Amino acid sequence: MPVNRRHFVTGLALAGVAADLRAADPIPAEQEAAHDVTRTLARYVVAAVPADLPEPPRKAATRTFLNWMGCAVGGSRHETVDIAVAALGPFSGPAQATLLGRKERLDILNAALINGIASHIFDYDDTHLRTVIHPAGPVASALLALSEYHPVTGRDFVNALALGVEVECRIGNAVYPSHYDAGWHITGTAGVFGAAAAAGKILGLSEQQMLWALGLAATQPVGLKEMFGTMTKSFHPGRAAQNGLTAALLAAKGFTSSEQSLEAKNGWVRAVSTAHNYAELTEKLGKTYEISLNTYKPFACGVVIHPAIDGCIQLRNQYKLTADQIDRIDLRVHPLVLELTGKKTPQTGLEGKFSVYFAAALAIVQGAAGEKEFSDKLVRDPVIVALRDRVTPAPDTTIGETAVQVTITLKDGRRLEKSVEHAIGSLENPLSDGDLGKKFLDLTTSVFPLTKSRKLLELCWNLENLPRVAEIAKAAAA
Amino acid sequence: MPVNRRHFVTGLALAGVAADLRAADPIPAEQEAAHDVTRTLARYVVAAVPADLPEPPRKAATRTFLNWMGCAVGGSRHETVDIAVAALGPFSGPAQATLLGRKERLDILNAALINGIASHIFDYDDTHLRTVIHPAGPVASALLALSEYHPVTGRDFVNALALGVEVECRIGNAVYPSHYDAGWHITGTAGVFGAAAAAGKILGLSEQQMLWALGLAATQPVGLKEMFGTMTKSFHPGRAAQNGLTAALLAAKGFTSSEQSLEAKNGWVRAVSTAHNYAELTEKLGKTYEISLNTYKPFACGVVIHPAIDGCIQLRNQYKLTADQIDRIDLRVHPLVLELTGKKTPQTGLEGKFSVYFAAALAIVQGAAGEKEFSDKLVRDPVIVALRDRVTPAPDTTIGETAVQVTITLKDGRRLEKSVEHAIGSLENPLSDGDLGKKFLDLTTSVFPLTKSRKLLELCWNLENLPRVAEIAKAAAA
Repeated sequence: MPVNRRHFVTGLALAGVAADLRAADPIPAEQEAAHDVTRTLARYVVAAVPADLPEPPRKAATRTFLNWMGCAVGGSRHETVDIAVAALGPFSGPAQATLLGRKERLDILNAALINGIASHIFDYDDTHLRTVIHPAGPVASALLALSEYHPVTGRDFVNALALGVEVECRIGNAVYPSHYDAGWHITGTAGVFGAAAAAGKILGLSEQQMLWALGLAATQPVGLKEMFGTMTKSFHPGRAAQNGLTAALLAAKGFTSSEQSLEAKNGWVRAVSTAHNYAELTEKLGKTYEISLNTYKPFACGVVIHPAIDGCIQLRNQYKLTADQIDRIDLRVHPLVLELTGKKTPQTGLEGKFSVYFAAALAIVQGAAGEKEFSDKLVRDPVIVALRDRVTPAPDTTIGETAVQVTITLKDGRRLEKSVEHAIGSLENPLSDGDLGKKFLDLTTSVFPLTKSRKLLELCWNLENLPRVAEIAKAAAA
Repeated sequence: MPVNRRHFVTGLALAGVAADLRAADPIPAEQEAAHDVTRTLARYVVAAVPADLPEPPRKAATRTFLNWMGCAVGGSRHETVDIAVAALGPFSGPAQATLLGRKERLDILNAALINGIASHIFDYDDTHLRTVIHPAGPVASALLALSEYHPVTGRDFVNALALGVEVECRIGNAVYPSHYDAGWHITGTAGVFGAAAAAGKILGLSEQQMLWALGLAATQPVGLKEMFGTMTKSFHPGRAAQNGLTAALLAAKGFTSSEQSLEAKNGWVRAVSTAHNYAELTEKLGKTYEISLNTYKPFACGVVIHPAIDGCIQLRNQYKLTADQIDRIDLRVHPLVLELTGKKTPQTGLEGKFSVYFAAALAIVQGAAGEKEFSDKLVRDPVIVALRDRVTPAPDTTIGETAVQVTITLKDGRRLEKSVEHAIGSLENPLSDGDLGKKFLDLTTSVFPLTKSRKLLELCWNLENLPRVAEIAKAAAA
């Protein structure tokens, strides 16, 4: 059995010497250029104060948090959450932090996990479209749990949330799409860094400690795409939150780690991605804000059919349409729509999310397409089913991915047309605060009484002005 | 901002439909062949009973456990462990499980983490040479902690330990070396599976649940090589133990995951490795045992200088040599020895581990090279330093990696020669039970009184016959 070099290298013990050996390797020019990206990120996060953060990203942070809270409360009674609480509750520490929408309180690390799981259950959370990261799951779940242990003001919370999302999405930008194509669920893998940076900011880490926190985050990525379609998908943002928070807590006490965890030869970027663009990590840092690019879904399904739903709801409301008036609905759609949501006769609420036929009919009949509407009951509703069978989508390569051309032919012969260029919820046509609030109430009232939901909504809108953010967590307990 | 297909795919919700979409992809022939490797592994682990396990792997499991225990107790008072306990203790659950060598008791998940960290501190733990996995860290740390919550007999424990090591090392075999070359610390990444399988075995998981446990393990790999030289290296086996145990606990309650987590298109193997050999996962399953290939270091340094130390100790003992008798020591060594351990004038105990000069002199003067000997004090000892400067290693490509040719020239002109083909501790020349026991006492008596160490050693040798393995954990508490 030959001894090999690799084995010897694992035989290296602590500090110093191993670093010496590394330093002896020739450093390629490209790596030299990337030499300090982790440090640059860490330094930025450590130095950034709330007063630096302009109004648009501050507002975006509040909207991000509010949307996340609605999703987490809405998902809190799902079987996935019940199982996770039953499995891990017996090992939880003190009752330090709230499980949103529930009665149990767990230690902050377990609360970060569970709330992160709950927030992703419906796949209705926020989306950074460029990387398909759902930024809030890892970051807000870690931050809110921590805020119940380590008091934090709304102002500091918003700053930390924006910084965590910045780190997470910049790292995503640097490796997308090759990282995602390799099989990783980027929300979990990049999310660990975001959670570590945000929690580390609240804990007041030094630059050195922040580097260690990022190193500890790098070494525990979470999430393979193979898990899509199982409960483990929602586990990813939750575990990312928990791992990032763990990383920050360890670093705060002096647990050492790499200081070049992203760019090093044996670091994160090379391990998880075949291509990368390090400039994305540091260019315009402190001048642009990824959280301002965050979007919020108006409909509880994949974004590819959002334009069709949007167009149908607009015509419905404009002409006060009912199903029985309609002879047929023609949709000119981007080709991806039929490829991904071409189910003609869905049988369950979940399958309904993959049927542009059902979605268009649902939009006409209900005027909404939230989580409540994608139900087994409505999928089998005779009026919707009858209309569904009169929907005819046609792929058209001249139609953009956020666009649709809807033509509704009425039984009286009239033809109603609606052209949507950018569907509601897209970056160009974001959900209004009013619609975001409606979505929030729609989600939370499945769990809380309306008055309690309204009070929680108000607290979320007021996030930045709260003296203690823990107040929101307490208001979100069952 | 274009909608992209990837985004839509992340928009898929739970079960069923996502799997349908996956199934629609054409499956390459190679993937087809690998179709069931995860299931084959899971089925094997679920079905294997203690009576199936032959004596050699049973004996190897006891030796593996004993060596791990010695390392964990020996490392238990290290600063790395102190920091981890201080950072995470406040969030720990009930005092369910022992921290080896310490007074604190934490919940089983945190105990698995901390004991796994402690066991790797000195890099003195067991090694599966083919993959450079340190198998016990993840598996034994999870199992022993679990045994304090869920009663388990020695017989079942040994079986589960062997099965966990089997899964871990077979997965390592399937992706080594490309996985390791990509930057991953294979002990942490493959270790999660081993911990999940072993813990799942004790929990009595069904085949379905075992598949989920392996899926949950796949989605949370731990460890980048970049962390070598920092405390985070020891974090890897500990976190792998904790993640694997978490995976098994969740699966036991019905938390769903992929059933093809290794071989799927977006699964673990493709995400973490550029090459793979699926046959390694299943060939001769139940007929060969990877734990029988486990090795135990006799010296607390990289294996590459073990032959030189072994040869020098043999000559010392044979001729009752003292440093003042020796004119010079010539070593014909494999070229890797000078490349990796060529430090001529080490200044610290840690640097001493990277000096074949010091190691040879240490072997002559002390007759040992355990963790205690690689001290700052001995590195500066005048007698050793003087002899160190009379050591001359010469690289020789005809010398094997586990071999050495030692020539000691005495001041009286005599030349003493020793040729070592396979150093002590190699697979061909394993550490005897007696030497393993000496190593154990050497490590544990830095923490415990000798009588307590001896009692613990006896319990470890008797592992398989214990009615309750938790007894060992209790005996290993401070």
